[in-house]
Amino acid sequence: MGQVLLTAQPREEIDVTLPDGSKRKGTSWQTSPMDIAKEISKGLADRIVIAKVDGDVWDLERPLEKSCSLELLDFEHPEGKRVFWHSSAHVLGEAAERHYGCHLCIGPPTEEGFFYEMAIEDRPVTNADYPNLEKLTDAAIKEKQKFERLVVSKEKLLEMFGYNKYKRYIIETKIPDGTSTTVYRCGPMIDLCVGPHIPHTGKIKAFMLTKNSASYFLGDPTNDSLQRIYGISFPDKKQLSEYKVFLAEAAKRDHRKIGKEQELFFFNDLSPGSAFFLPHGTRIYNTLVELMRSEYFKRGYQEVISPNMYNAKLWETSGHWQNYGEDMFALDVEKEKWALKPMNCPGHCVIFDSRDRSYKELPIRMAEFGIIHRNEASGALTGLTRVRRFVQDDTHVFCMHSQVEEELYALFDFMERIYGLFGFEFKLELSTRPEKHLGSIETWDQAEAQLKKALEKQYPGQWELNPGDGAFYGPKIDITIRDALRRSFQCATIQLDFQLPERFGLKYRSAEDNAENKDKPPSRPVIIHRAILGSLERFIAILTEHFAGKWPFWLSPRQVLVVPVAGPYKDGDTLPKKVRNGEIAQYNFILVVGQEELDGRSVNARNRDDVGTKGKAEMIPLEDISKKLVQLKESRSLHNKLP
Amino acid sequence: MGQVLLTAQPREEIDVTLPDGSKRKGTSWQTSPMDIAKEISKGLADRIVIAKVDGDVWDLERPLEKSCSLELLDFEHPEGKRVFWHSSAHVLGEAAERHYGCHLCIGPPTEEGFFYEMAIEDRPVTNADYPNLEKLTDAAIKEKQKFERLVVSKEKLLEMFGYNKYKRYIIETKIPDGTSTTVYRCGPMIDLCVGPHIPHTGKIKAFMLTKNSASYFLGDPTNDSLQRIYGISFPDKKQLSEYKVFLAEAAKRDHRKIGKEQELFFFNDLSPGSAFFLPHGTRIYNTLVELMRSEYFKRGYQEVISPNMYNAKLWETSGHWQNYGEDMFALDVEKEKWALKPMNCPGHCVIFDSRDRSYKELPIRMAEFGIIHRNEASGALTGLTRVRRFVQDDTHVFCMHSQVEEELYALFDFMERIYGLFGFEFKLELSTRPEKHLGSIETWDQAEAQLKKALEKQYPGQWELNPGDGAFYGPKIDITIRDALRRSFQCATIQLDFQLPERFGLKYRSAEDNAENKDKPPSRPVIIHRAILGSLERFIAILTEHFAGKWPFWLSPRQVLVVPVAGPYKDGDTLPKKVRNGEIAQYNFILVVGQEELDGRSVNARNRDDVGTKGKAEMIPLEDISKKLVQLKESRSLHNKLP
Repeated sequence: MGQVLLTAQPREEIDVTLPDGSKRKGTSWQTSPMDIAKEISKGLADRIVIAKVDGDVWDLERPLEKSCSLELLDFEHPEGKRVFWHSSAHVLGEAAERHYGCHLCIGPPTEEGFFYEMAIEDRPVTNADYPNLEKLTDAAIKEKQKFERLVVSKEKLLEMFGYNKYKRYIIETKIPDGTSTTVYRCGPMIDLCVGPHIPHTGKIKAFMLTKNSASYFLGDPTNDSLQRIYGISFPDKKQLSEYKVFLAEAAKRDHRKIGKEQELFFFNDLSPGSAFFLPHGTRIYNTLVELMRSEYFKRGYQEVISPNMYNAKLWETSGHWQNYGEDMFALDVEKEKWALKPMNCPGHCVIFDSRDRSYKELPIRMAEFGIIHRNEASGALTGLTRVRRFVQDDTHVFCMHSQVEEELYALFDFMERIYGLFGFEFKLELSTRPEKHLGSIETWDQAEAQLKKALEKQYPGQWELNPGDGAFYGPKIDITIRDALRRSFQCATIQLDFQLPERFGLKYRSAEDNAENKDKPPSRPVIIHRAILGSLERFIAILTEHFAGKWPFWLSPRQVLVVPVAGPYKDGDTLPKKVRNGEIAQYNFILVVGQEELDGRSVNARNRDDVGTKGKAEMIPLEDISKKLVQLKESRSLHNKLP
Repeated sequence: MGQVLLTAQPREEIDVTLPDGSKRKGTSWQTSPMDIAKEISKGLADRIVIAKVDGDVWDLERPLEKSCSLELLDFEHPEGKRVFWHSSAHVLGEAAERHYGCHLCIGPPTEEGFFYEMAIEDRPVTNADYPNLEKLTDAAIKEKQKFERLVVSKEKLLEMFGYNKYKRYIIETKIPDGTSTTVYRCGPMIDLCVGPHIPHTGKIKAFMLTKNSASYFLGDPTNDSLQRIYGISFPDKKQLSEYKVFLAEAAKRDHRKIGKEQELFFFNDLSPGSAFFLPHGTRIYNTLVELMRSEYFKRGYQEVISPNMYNAKLWETSGHWQNYGEDMFALDVEKEKWALKPMNCPGHCVIFDSRDRSYKELPIRMAEFGIIHRNEASGALTGLTRVRRFVQDDTHVFCMHSQVEEELYALFDFMERIYGLFGFEFKLELSTRPEKHLGSIETWDQAEAQLKKALEKQYPGQWELNPGDGAFYGPKIDITIRDALRRSFQCATIQLDFQLPERFGLKYRSAEDNAENKDKPPSRPVIIHRAILGSLERFIAILTEHFAGKWPFWLSPRQVLVVPVAGPYKDGDTLPKKVRNGEIAQYNFILVVGQEELDGRSVNARNRDDVGTKGKAEMIPLEDISKKLVQLKESRSLHNKLP
């Protein structure tokens, strides 16, 4: 069908510009990116998985249509990875259709692999299905099935997918009448898909199914129950082996596993998504809050406490009711609609507005460890990383536009201080004015110039630009940290907001306000939303996995175990058993006190990190050890070494 | 009507036993308590307001029916006060009926006076009505109207009060068919009332209306709107003058007033009953939490964090859903009923039950500063003393029955430590097994014996017994503190609970559990609910009024004001003005730094409490002042004196 269209196109000589500026000749509607790659080298042609033409992803075998710029992406490129996994999902879909005779639904790539979602009648997916499914995917891969792109009209699509109510629903609701879209054929399967895809399934050298789960069509619990099968794939067998090692390490560090072992927290079906923090978990929680509080004190932040629920009128003013209503927990209070707060900002605007403000007071850095609730579907909840109830290290800086730059330097310094304590590297990205935005272009330009200037001054050449990717209410800087397993997490954010001050009518008396100047419009502060840890719950999950449960002393929920073995303290367990238990529980230091130590007012100190190295225990006078431990705690050092 | 009944009773000689053990003779159905009082002395007869006969309150002029014990109570006795104010409410009702032609509803005594609630057509009560109302009450008082007790059948009552739908509703719902109850006649007014009352209105020597407010019949917002007029009265004019002085002092200390002046907190209609704590209020809040936390650490408490909302199943297990449902904020979560927590205990039971427990772990003292919501009607909310959202210094001690006594000593010690810091005296009352109770009498007896023993050992002769006044789930000790104005507040509570452990099926392995003993029923812990501050919000209100906003240094939201007056720091305000502003803001210390101090690395320190005493400022070296201030903070002293 698509072919018919192609033949009708004019063939002309075109120029293809590569990223290094070099140019290649080709013919429109004939030369494909793969042709260009082969011209360059066979190695390149083998390695690449997708092209980008004038900035858009493009099938390698799809003919170029006009003179253009061309990038050739391999699996290491994030977009290459997405396409590779998307194509792998089709392979999985093909195998699932054969194995179950199921109705396929959607099969997208994810952050780590891909899944296919399907309706299977009267039976759940089990691990026992994996071998046969993998046999079928291996066969498809061996056949080097080509991905063929076809353009099909909506009318025809409805006919093709008439047997599958899910695909039909998608076609009916997503594709305008009278238009066409693409399907991809791969082996025996034709799937509704905008693509693009790798040239053929043979590119997939390693393929593994990872897990399965139940889901609902379109994520809505009132729709049909579906099932998802997840997998991952690589262009190289070695990568799969490495991935398996990574998985094993990640499983060992899984915060849910360590959380249970170390009795840090647990969940209960009486309140899914709200963690119960046990005493040792609460210690970590409180230590993080104390850390932030001590920095707030030094950095001129002011802590406040605001309500947890508000009349819908507040959410209408802030815009949450209209745009975020479904994600809030609603309740009825004296016949009016209310909601639990999903964020602190509107409450902080009420505080700012609770009396007249002068420019002399700005910037006001308003911090709160407020409890926040968001109405996540119970099926989407995962450990501490996706919860319904959490606390943020949330601050809103109310300042003049002219103060933004100075505030940014202070925020960078704060961030470096905090991330440095945990040994996190971080990466910064600036997102600028999107097409749909609020506020004048001058205000945006001024703000973006301040952000760029500050970034370039502090991190020259080390930050990235995402043009047009800002929030509609202002430009923002996203900060991504990397943990010990080189995984990336976005925790911190710095967002400029021109909208909330407008919606809440916030104002301050400026230096220019005076009697002669009465008709001047009010001066609006700008709000900087900023968090460093982000959600404390999620940050604790990240830290647990980052440290693999071996907490640095200052943050450790189990710092010191004292094992008395002198006379009256002898009991059932032997000394080696007690020490071993202390090691398993990850006490940073184990202090053994026998008769000798008792007589000499000293302790026999063992360091958690010296386990197995005999003779490492040190005899230290009692006065010294407590001083040293206090010093180590106050240093907030990452190393478990007595000073 | 009543008289008819009286004449039918037999007249016999009776013995009347007074509290000192002496006996008086009298005649049944003829001699009244007042007759006995007059026999003793005219002064006594003039002073007393009510009698107690065999433990029940009794009108002074009501004939005694048989040999009995007799107490004669004056206004200083709490029950005397209640009766005096109850009678005063009738006087107010009489005046209101005349002034407004209103329908009276109820007129009870309160903690501080009395009110009458009424339905007035088409007009609100205003202060402008007070002079005329007081003229009418004065007239009634001058007439020395007698309170006459009459026994009337339900049938007759419905006839008498047919014109008043509120009284009719009360008669219909509260009085069983075919029975009688009492009305009291006083001057022209007959009111439905169980009494008792003072002999006549002439006993009231001072009468004042204090305020008015809107209300609903039976407190239900779906019922008719009513209006309440509040008043207070005394048997001596001097007492009213003293009360007015007290009122003025209390008004000066009103926490809502000081909260505004010192920018501690505010309320907003977008969330009535949930305070917004401003930065300076948050400092007090956090300092109190830190105080409790530091004591928790020393006293073997373990802090936890539990969810804020739960599926109704939890509340059904705990019994809150059935007994407390209307006081909880309910919400729908994925088609199931949920509610915000009104207390932490059920969540702590879930934590206790999250794994097996051994007797070796007990007692577990589980503390949480959890945010609690209670659905109070918006009309009932008052400042920080009656709120919808608050945090308690809440602890649940899970222990063996045999450990209760030891825990009590620890709790007494904790309480003394905390109240001592604020200069609060306190009073203890033990409430024992009520008729309706859960658990065996043996368990109750054992627990009460432990409570009594501990109280008597720690506070010999200094505690009171309220027999039968315990909660149905266990006996309790209520602790009442007295503030600087001698007002009483119940903050702390110690409650034994046998019921929740039963409802949640909590158990622990006891020392006796072993293989040969498998059929032994599980060992249940007992729970001690305890709070010392109670609600932090309410405690901050009490502290604000207790200290009249002059915070002790360690708790002060404004500890030190540094006023630089040397060269570059000179600005608009003069030195005296800056110092004066600091004094008004209640800074504990004001440190002035001029050229002389700058040169000598010292400060000129002024103490808040030395205001007006010239020449009191002290020159102190910089190093010394910071050491002294840290020392003063750590001492948590009530006195604003540098060490």
